[in-house]
Amino acid sequence: MKNGNLSSPFRMFMDVDKKAIELSRKRKGKITISSKLKKGEMDLSLVYTPGVAAVAMAIKKNEEDEKNLTYSGNSIAVITDGTRVLGLGNIGPHAAMPVMEGKALLFKYYGGVDAVPITLGVTDKEKIIDAVKAIAPSFSGINLEDIEFPKAYYILRELKESLRIPIWHDDEQGTAAVSTAGLLNAFRLLKKDIKNSKIVVFGVGAANSMTIMFLQKLGVNAENIIAIDSNGPLYKGREDMEEIKSKNPVKYEITNATNKEQEKTIEGAFKDADAVVAASKPGPGVIKGEWIRKMNEPIVFALANPYPEIGRKEALAAGAKVYCSGRSDLPNQINNSLVFPGMFRGALDSHSKAITDNMAIAAAKELAQYALKKGLKKDYIIPRMDDVEVHCRVAAAVAYSAVKEGIASRKSTYSRFYREAKEKILEAQRRMFI
Amino acid sequence: MKNGNLSSPFRMFMDVDKKAIELSRKRKGKITISSKLKKGEMDLSLVYTPGVAAVAMAIKKNEEDEKNLTYSGNSIAVITDGTRVLGLGNIGPHAAMPVMEGKALLFKYYGGVDAVPITLGVTDKEKIIDAVKAIAPSFSGINLEDIEFPKAYYILRELKESLRIPIWHDDEQGTAAVSTAGLLNAFRLLKKDIKNSKIVVFGVGAANSMTIMFLQKLGVNAENIIAIDSNGPLYKGREDMEEIKSKNPVKYEITNATNKEQEKTIEGAFKDADAVVAASKPGPGVIKGEWIRKMNEPIVFALANPYPEIGRKEALAAGAKVYCSGRSDLPNQINNSLVFPGMFRGALDSHSKAITDNMAIAAAKELAQYALKKGLKKDYIIPRMDDVEVHCRVAAAVAYSAVKEGIASRKSTYSRFYREAKEKILEAQRRMFI
Repeated sequence: MKNGNLSSPFRMFMDVDKKAIELSRKRKGKITISSKLKKGEMDLSLVYTPGVAAVAMAIKKNEEDEKNLTYSGNSIAVITDGTRVLGLGNIGPHAAMPVMEGKALLFKYYGGVDAVPITLGVTDKEKIIDAVKAIAPSFSGINLEDIEFPKAYYILRELKESLRIPIWHDDEQGTAAVSTAGLLNAFRLLKKDIKNSKIVVFGVGAANSMTIMFLQKLGVNAENIIAIDSNGPLYKGREDMEEIKSKNPVKYEITNATNKEQEKTIEGAFKDADAVVAASKPGPGVIKGEWIRKMNEPIVFALANPYPEIGRKEALAAGAKVYCSGRSDLPNQINNSLVFPGMFRGALDSHSKAITDNMAIAAAKELAQYALKKGLKKDYIIPRMDDVEVHCRVAAAVAYSAVKEGIASRKSTYSRFYREAKEKILEAQRRMFI
Repeated sequence: MKNGNLSSPFRMFMDVDKKAIELSRKRKGKITISSKLKKGEMDLSLVYTPGVAAVAMAIKKNEEDEKNLTYSGNSIAVITDGTRVLGLGNIGPHAAMPVMEGKALLFKYYGGVDAVPITLGVTDKEKIIDAVKAIAPSFSGINLEDIEFPKAYYILRELKESLRIPIWHDDEQGTAAVSTAGLLNAFRLLKKDIKNSKIVVFGVGAANSMTIMFLQKLGVNAENIIAIDSNGPLYKGREDMEEIKSKNPVKYEITNATNKEQEKTIEGAFKDADAVVAASKPGPGVIKGEWIRKMNEPIVFALANPYPEIGRKEALAAGAKVYCSGRSDLPNQINNSLVFPGMFRGALDSHSKAITDNMAIAAAKELAQYALKKGLKKDYIIPRMDDVEVHCRVAAAVAYSAVKEGIASRKSTYSRFYREAKEKILEAQRRMFI
């Protein structure tokens, strides 16, 4: 394939691809294990035998002290089975490693969190659960990543029930939290009431299923939500209802709770809708301009990567008032990185026993509030992830939410959590490079 | 307990204990995740999406390239279930964390290896095996640590059969390799032939069982080895033979292969023995001076921690010609740290599919050779672990041994492996501190 034959966005991608591989090869990856000690503190009798035995016995006496005496108070595992990596599908645990490593890098850079990539050699649901439970004592949190849906849904729920540490499925709660934040502000900007809105949810995978749940918790009437999968809108009584029930109970619940009008066509679903949230498959052409034209002051979230379901220009030409995508080269990027670093920073700093939906919604509201404070515009309804302030605020909001919910072992104020987070994140950014 | 009531060695230990806890609390542990990038290389489009997808697909096409494109080519897991930690016994996974973390620190400092502590919440043999197999694709090597014996023995063997990466049980192969190196030089120093020697092996746990095996591979006649457990010398026909067979087949094999004379008393075992290798329980008083007096130019290895089975002064007074212990404050420290960093450095650099007994014996011989080259003395039969040269040489010897055995995917010469190891270890030492 010659570059000369490609149109410019493709050429740009090839350039990025080549550079990414070159950088990975030059540095042999991106992360490394280092020490928190000064050189003079490398005294073997203190960091290893015999002194380490005393540290071990101190934890034996008071298990909670592990968080203060070892790195594991700040460490989480980023776990995948490689079955649904980015838009690449089931590429297996080895090919998934650079992605998990990149995620670990972002955890450190934006959250000051020590994240260890774990790429599993098992894909069976129960085996994944067993493996995560087995290694869980090594970490203070678990970030599930790029595991196929709906399997990931059950794994998350089972682990949440059996483990007493923060557990997060980033493709589900992470994307949903950022989408929710964006929607809150898009409706604010257009001065419309999200509670009485009609929202089309295009694609019913991990993220969108959770977005529907968060919207409900924020008071949006589910009956006015229409969820669309590859067979069209979901509605009670659709002919594949039983199949859905057996294969994907989450989707079954959504089918029952949404689309009260039993709208059966995509065109009908879009008619007079206030917003569409698409997280389906790469476009362009997956969402049509003519559908957008049927909407009422359209808010368009086209989140597929690397190509949105409908391009920005096409969406704006069709009348979109607000357009968001997953792309870093466009304004209004809906990206999990806006939440996951602060989410774990806050969960760890509050010694929270879990990550609840309330904590995720607190993160979404904080994100929205911060953009609001900076000044909402058509092209700024969500903060940018390279704004350190975002992550410090999300961390504080999450930690304080855990305190209010009563699941934090360490209680403090929003402002103190904020200062701590800021200190840790800035320190990470200062120290982490060679 | 008042310090004033304690004799001075106890006071010294309390001081170390206190300082170790203080340092751990001050730094919140010892290791951290950092990056291998320069600050200017932190370009999200290269280290994360969209560029990372190209790195993932490059590995999908050629799995071996994971070693060159991700940190996992240099990373291993240090895995324990917390059932036999140091001399502390079954303290569980949380209390085991500072020990594993210390080990990870040594891996980096002496081997330039990125080691991740994994403390398991399962203790059942099969569950440990399943967990390690599940996470194995995340790493290029597995270091098993502080798992109770004989369970650890089977776990090691099962994992070696099913995984194609270097696997090492440090309490078994590590201690045995260093003991073997020490014995080789002790016999050299005394100008005695180890092959025709009588050796008492006191304590038949993980390390000593493997030491017996290594000694056999070096040509020592097993019939002249007498292994002693808590019921006295092992010999064919001992009354608990059937119980040994069912509970601990390794010990059963040893019972069959050793002590041809069927010596039944400890005193008889020691009579005219050339060496005793004790790895049993903390002394003093576990090995008696009067037993040493029955030996022939006694070589005494008293390896229990923190207190050797017989103290140095007492052993020398009883006629010991060479005395080794696990203590860092005495000469001739037999410590695993002399082998494990270089072992993994060499196994990783040669892309070895396993760690074989030959590689462990190559490490032992290299250690012995290096001390020999520096000049053997009564108080210098084994190198010191703070001598960087040791680790570079062990790495090169191990890597080259893997090449000769045909299990290295990356073939090179001893001197090239040596230069690479030295560069990596010195770089780690230069960069790892804050």
